[in-house]
Amino acid sequence: MPGSYGWGMRTRVTDMFGIEFPIFAFSHCRDVVAAVSRAGGMGVLGALYFTPEELETELKWIDDNVGGMPYGVDVVMPASYEGADLGVDSPEDLLGRLQGMIPAGHRSFVDGLLERHGVPPLNGDDAGRALLGWTDATARPQVEVALRHPIALLANALGPPPADVVEQAHAKGVKVAALASTPRHAVKQVEVGVDVVVAQGTEAGGHTGEISTMVLIPQVVDAVDVPVLAAGGIGDGRQMAAGMALGAEGVWTGSIWLTVEEADTPEMARQRILAATSRDTVRSRSWTGKPARLLKNEWTDAWEAADSPGTLPMPLQFMLVSDALRRIGRSDAAELATFPAGQIIGTMNQVKSARQVVFEMIEGYVSAMERLDRITAD
Amino acid sequence: MPGSYGWGMRTRVTDMFGIEFPIFAFSHCRDVVAAVSRAGGMGVLGALYFTPEELETELKWIDDNVGGMPYGVDVVMPASYEGADLGVDSPEDLLGRLQGMIPAGHRSFVDGLLERHGVPPLNGDDAGRALLGWTDATARPQVEVALRHPIALLANALGPPPADVVEQAHAKGVKVAALASTPRHAVKQVEVGVDVVVAQGTEAGGHTGEISTMVLIPQVVDAVDVPVLAAGGIGDGRQMAAGMALGAEGVWTGSIWLTVEEADTPEMARQRILAATSRDTVRSRSWTGKPARLLKNEWTDAWEAADSPGTLPMPLQFMLVSDALRRIGRSDAAELATFPAGQIIGTMNQVKSARQVVFEMIEGYVSAMERLDRITAD
Repeated sequence: MPGSYGWGMRTRVTDMFGIEFPIFAFSHCRDVVAAVSRAGGMGVLGALYFTPEELETELKWIDDNVGGMPYGVDVVMPASYEGADLGVDSPEDLLGRLQGMIPAGHRSFVDGLLERHGVPPLNGDDAGRALLGWTDATARPQVEVALRHPIALLANALGPPPADVVEQAHAKGVKVAALASTPRHAVKQVEVGVDVVVAQGTEAGGHTGEISTMVLIPQVVDAVDVPVLAAGGIGDGRQMAAGMALGAEGVWTGSIWLTVEEADTPEMARQRILAATSRDTVRSRSWTGKPARLLKNEWTDAWEAADSPGTLPMPLQFMLVSDALRRIGRSDAAELATFPAGQIIGTMNQVKSARQVVFEMIEGYVSAMERLDRITAD
Repeated sequence: MPGSYGWGMRTRVTDMFGIEFPIFAFSHCRDVVAAVSRAGGMGVLGALYFTPEELETELKWIDDNVGGMPYGVDVVMPASYEGADLGVDSPEDLLGRLQGMIPAGHRSFVDGLLERHGVPPLNGDDAGRALLGWTDATARPQVEVALRHPIALLANALGPPPADVVEQAHAKGVKVAALASTPRHAVKQVEVGVDVVVAQGTEAGGHTGEISTMVLIPQVVDAVDVPVLAAGGIGDGRQMAAGMALGAEGVWTGSIWLTVEEADTPEMARQRILAATSRDTVRSRSWTGKPARLLKNEWTDAWEAADSPGTLPMPLQFMLVSDALRRIGRSDAAELATFPAGQIIGTMNQVKSARQVVFEMIEGYVSAMERLDRITAD
C-alpha cells in the first residue's frame, strides 16, 4: 500500500483511523492539526484553552480545512482535583468556590514576582479566563462541542475519562485515547473502555510522570491489549523507530510542533525553544499544581526558591497563575515566560512546515529501518 | 556470520572487540563479567570498590574463567572533585586532608539516622574503606593493575579520562570508553581520544544526567564520529532494538545484572529489586555528592527532609556515608539500604542466569526486528 510518499506503514492504529502514518500531533493550533492530518498523520487539537464557543469556531475551521482527513480533540478531565467533591455543576459557581480557596499569601507572592520583573497588568477584558478546561465540569461542555463535529478521536489527559464520556464517544463512532505514565494507569484506562493508550515518558512536555519512555513503553505494551502510542522524546524518525521497536503501534508528539511555520506560538517562546538545549526543561508543579515539564527559567526557579509559598493543588495553581502567565506573555519579561516543553526542544533549531516535519520523520524512519537491516545482514 | 545463536549482528563495535553481540554488561561481580563475555557479549568489571590488590585478584580470576573472550574494566576518574587542587598524590595523604573537610554536623546527622533505625556499628577492621576509586589519585593504581591484564576495554565514568591514561591504554592496544550524559561531554571525550562513547540517559542506575535515553542518543550520535553505545533503560531486546534504532551501535547495561544468579548482590537488595516498580528509584546526591539514580527509600528521603544538612561534594559525601551504608547492609534496617539502580528494576521480577539474560535479549531483539519488518511490509 504505497502512499503519497511511495512507502507505507500498517499497524492496528493506521487501520483504526484510516491514516497513512501512525503519527499523532498534539497542538493547540488548528493550522497544525489540519496540516498534519493532510500530510498523512493525525492532528489532535488541545481544547483546554478554549471556551466552548471558541472551540466550536476552531473545529469548524478544521472541518473546512482538513480535506476530509481524520483529526482528534484532546480534553483534560483529571481523575482528581480540588473541588471535585463540592457537588457544583455550574462552571461559574465552581470557579467562585475555588477562588475562595486560594490563600492571600500565594496571591501576593505572584504579584511580588511580577512587580520585581516590571510586568504590566492586563486589560480588564483579558483577565479571568482561569478555570477553562481543568475540571470535569468545565471540560464536559468542550466534549459536547467536540462530539458535534466529525472527529475521529477524543483523547483525555490526566487519567481515565469518565465512563459515560467514553460511551458517548463510542455511540458516535469516535475512538477514545488516554495518556498513561504508569502501566497501572493504562490498565485502568482500558477498563473504562479506552481504545488507544498513549504511554508517555517523563521526557515529554506538559503533564508527565517519572518513568522514561524507554522503560515505560514495553511495560504498558505488556499490560494492555489495545494499541499503544509512544509519547515523550519523539521528534525525529529515529525516535519514532525506537518507539515502534519498544512495541508501540504509533507515536504521539507534541513539542516538535511548537516551532513549525503554522504554529501560533508567540515569537518570544519560539526563539527560546530554538535556542534551548535538552537540559533547559524541568518537571514543575508551578503551572497547574500537578507535575508538568516546562521550560526552566526564573518562573520555575522562583517556585523552588526559599521564599516560595509552595504550589497549590489542581486546579487552584492554574487559577492562581493563569492571568500572571498571560501578563508575562504580553510583556518583555522573557525570563519569566514559561510553557510546557519536552526535552526534544534541544534538537529543534529550525523552523519548518508541519508537512516537512512529517516527511522528515518518515524519511528518518525509513533510514533507521535500513540501518537496522544492515546490522543483522549476514 | 551466524554465531552460536544461529544469528549475527555486525556494527563497528562488534568489529572493534571481536564480539558476537554488542551488549556490554557493567557489573561489580567477576562472575557476571565472565559469564556475559562467554555468552557472546562483553563483561566490564566495575573496579571502584576494590583496592589495587583486590582488583588484581578479581582480574586474575576473570582471566582464568572468561574462556579467552574479551572483557573490560571500568574506573571512576571524575573530571572534578573536592581536593583535586590540593596537589596531594598519595592516596593516604589525600584521605587525611579530605577527612578534615567533613563538617561535624554532617557526621552527627548520619550517626543519628543510623541510631534511630537501630543499626549496629562495624567491626574495626571493616571500617574506613571510604575513598577507594573516587579520585584521580586513587583510581590510577587501579588503572595500572587493569593494564597488566589482557583487557580489551578501559571505561571511565564521570567525564573524559586524563589524556595520559588514554595514551597508556592505547599503547597496550586497549580501547577506551567514557560515559556521557550530554552531547557536549561526548565531544570532549572524543577530543581526548576516547574510542567509544557510552551515551547514558537519566533512567540509568548510578551517576546519571537529566536527559532521557530517547532524547540523548540521537544527539550524541550526531555530535561524534566514534561508535556510541546506548545506556539507560536497556534491559530487554525491545529496548536494545530501540537503542540501535536511535543510532547506537551497541548497548551498555547495568541494573539488569543485579538480580542474575551469578551476581553477589546481597539477598536483601535482590529481594527489594525483584519487588520494586520503575517509580521506586530517585536521582539523589546522597550516595557520592553527584546526582546518581538510587533505590528510593528512607535513606534517600532522609537527605531531602527538612532537617537534612544537605549533601557534600564528591568525594566527601561518599567518605561520609561509606561506612554507614556498609553498616546498614549488614543490619536488618532494609528500609535504609540503598544502592544504584535504574528504572528498569520495575521489570526485573525473576532470577535468571547471565547467559539466559543475554539469550533473551537477543531473542527479543530478533522479535522486535521481525515486528518492525511487518509494519512496513506492503
